[in-house]
Amino acid sequence: MSANRHRVVIVGGGFAGLAAARGLKRAAVDITLIDRSNYHLFQPLLYQVATGGLSPADISAPIRAILHRQKNVGVIMEEAVGFEVRSREVVLREGRVAYDTLVLATGVRHHYFGHSEWEPEAPGLKTVEDATEIRGRILRAFEEAERASGNGDKAALLTFVVVGGGPTGVELAGAIAELARHTLKRDFRKIDPSAARILLVEATDRVLPSYRPELSAAAERALTGLGVEVLTGTMVERVAGHEVTLRSGDAGRNLATRTVLWAAGVQASSLAEELARETGSEVDRAGRLRVEADCTLAGHPEILALGDICHLAGTGGKPLPGVAPVAMQQGRYAARLIADRLAGRSTAAFRYRDRGSLAVIGRAAAVADLGRLRFTGFFAWLLWLFIHIMYLVGFENRVLVLVQWASSYFTHGRTARLITGRGQP
Amino acid sequence: MSANRHRVVIVGGGFAGLAAARGLKRAAVDITLIDRSNYHLFQPLLYQVATGGLSPADISAPIRAILHRQKNVGVIMEEAVGFEVRSREVVLREGRVAYDTLVLATGVRHHYFGHSEWEPEAPGLKTVEDATEIRGRILRAFEEAERASGNGDKAALLTFVVVGGGPTGVELAGAIAELARHTLKRDFRKIDPSAARILLVEATDRVLPSYRPELSAAAERALTGLGVEVLTGTMVERVAGHEVTLRSGDAGRNLATRTVLWAAGVQASSLAEELARETGSEVDRAGRLRVEADCTLAGHPEILALGDICHLAGTGGKPLPGVAPVAMQQGRYAARLIADRLAGRSTAAFRYRDRGSLAVIGRAAAVADLGRLRFTGFFAWLLWLFIHIMYLVGFENRVLVLVQWASSYFTHGRTARLITGRGQP
Repeated sequence: MSANRHRVVIVGGGFAGLAAARGLKRAAVDITLIDRSNYHLFQPLLYQVATGGLSPADISAPIRAILHRQKNVGVIMEEAVGFEVRSREVVLREGRVAYDTLVLATGVRHHYFGHSEWEPEAPGLKTVEDATEIRGRILRAFEEAERASGNGDKAALLTFVVVGGGPTGVELAGAIAELARHTLKRDFRKIDPSAARILLVEATDRVLPSYRPELSAAAERALTGLGVEVLTGTMVERVAGHEVTLRSGDAGRNLATRTVLWAAGVQASSLAEELARETGSEVDRAGRLRVEADCTLAGHPEILALGDICHLAGTGGKPLPGVAPVAMQQGRYAARLIADRLAGRSTAAFRYRDRGSLAVIGRAAAVADLGRLRFTGFFAWLLWLFIHIMYLVGFENRVLVLVQWASSYFTHGRTARLITGRGQP
Repeated sequence: MSANRHRVVIVGGGFAGLAAARGLKRAAVDITLIDRSNYHLFQPLLYQVATGGLSPADISAPIRAILHRQKNVGVIMEEAVGFEVRSREVVLREGRVAYDTLVLATGVRHHYFGHSEWEPEAPGLKTVEDATEIRGRILRAFEEAERASGNGDKAALLTFVVVGGGPTGVELAGAIAELARHTLKRDFRKIDPSAARILLVEATDRVLPSYRPELSAAAERALTGLGVEVLTGTMVERVAGHEVTLRSGDAGRNLATRTVLWAAGVQASSLAEELARETGSEVDRAGRLRVEADCTLAGHPEILALGDICHLAGTGGKPLPGVAPVAMQQGRYAARLIADRLAGRSTAAFRYRDRGSLAVIGRAAAVADLGRLRFTGFFAWLLWLFIHIMYLVGFENRVLVLVQWASSYFTHGRTARLITGRGQP
């Protein structure tokens, strides 16, 4: 690295940050990529780790390995904790890193709408640690039910509540249903795992509310077919003491359960707030940074916010969705913008090319919305498989995931169902 | 299950316990298999998890899934904590289980020869949690070295000390050397991972002391070729404050290091001691239960101890080695003994059929001792691959491990190098 080159510091090695770094491959810049993990995580498949279908490493790739041929990038595994905008520095837990251009892409974390006390009982799914924790909770519930003496305890242990009917909630509920109805079917002697109740709770009037209504309806039919109870128009009012209180209109009811999973809300990583304070930028209700049309902060052309952490109005004024394609396109856009600036060229505003949405409900069941083309069932599922395999980083990961999907397709098996961890109850 | 059938309780789902359960497939008994984990672990490959080559689930199989077709087995995931021999009960953390025949096969844990205070700084490798902890320590050392400012710190971070030159120590040291010299070679910008020092410390005068001298010599040559410093005739005198004190004869020296791995000693699981106290049985210095020629405890024909937890004199009076083949053969033997007793037949004493020993040093390097046939190098390695793949439980695991070995053979890659975990430093 040369001391005089333009210094680009990217915080976050997710889809946006990684795409930005790779997009700058040929640029005469010195890049520092900062992430608190040493791996890039393919989050869209995290629910399969949480339900024992895949191992964490199958959907992860070491950031250093991805970038090792790109000589203009240095990687630092550290947590960024703040910014010093005047001196143009990122503050790390230990030390600082100076930038000429800053790219913030640290994504989102769970949001409990003012009820952060629910978190211990209703974990969300964002990290590998979340996924192995949730996997342990789901599997341990069946283990404890096998040993429970009272019927009430057994019933509570075999009741799984997934809060939030977006893609993650739909995928999680479908996968838990398959785990209970098929994978674990003959594994127990004193309980019938297929009698487990899986409830999917969604506040709006349909699952996958960001999709078209006919796809929501197809998804709901597929979920019901798998044995998931879909409760739309239902809010969670309380999560405490192995019980959730649900409210649907005027009617409230309590449900005994030992496993509540949170897929209902996200808010921007706390670094968005730090940066907003430093720059005087605005954040939206979810804590996302409002950015200009070129993903920079108002008054700070040297700072870009990308991916889930930024609020950029799409067509119709609604913010762009927090999905991988937006993040990847913004990452590539940021790289182009930086290169253009160095070359003295101007860059048009970022424009999201929406190639469609996909959600998988279970084995051979998915919904696809490709604009004019909308379809459901087996072919949507095949398309989903194909796209997810293609976007996985690393040839070996692709083969490993394919092997496990093929095997589980034919045998209903899920071999990565380990209960691990220290200090868990 | 029928109330009148002979009740066999097996504590431990390792090689011995699982073989005993499967061996009783056709017997008219009710079997309860108790394990604190929900999976059977293929421990001989655990060092590959600890060095990022494989994922935990690749070498694990859910115990319930293995046994789900065997209707005379119930599985309980719980920790056994003691025994009540008079009433013939196993005491669990919660509740008790009554037996007619008890099979104890809970294996070994690390042994620090009276220096249990070394454990936090020098973890051993017995469980999946140990392996991911060690994997994190090794990888984090390189990450911290990349950021360290002082040369002394860098050197200490890049010094790895493996204590114990048995198969586990040899395999670990070889794998760390390959990780440093090949896998991570181009991943860093400020350090040269291939300059890392890997030391293998062995108290006796050669590595693999239980093998024949010429194979020990071949293993040492292979290790040295990989860049491992082999220190035979060397004892560890102290592990504290990022330093180990080594003693070789009269000469002592201190070595600054941040990663010490313990592969030097094991002792029987604490349940051996519990059972010895209850039955008045003898344990050896490593805490293993001394058993009769038929693996039962003296005066307690209804109690068998199998695998690493038992001390059974082999030819020459030395106890049988703590390896998987002994455990599997004893498990099958125990099943035969129990079935014979129920049929009123007598059973000959247990006889270990030693089919040989294998140890792998690195890519395409291993030593094999098959009695008359002893060889080293590529063919020993191929044999090692073949045998380990064959003994892995589960077709899918075999394919997954093969894919990852093939890939890492051609690319030197190790894709499972995640630093995970909560609350780790």
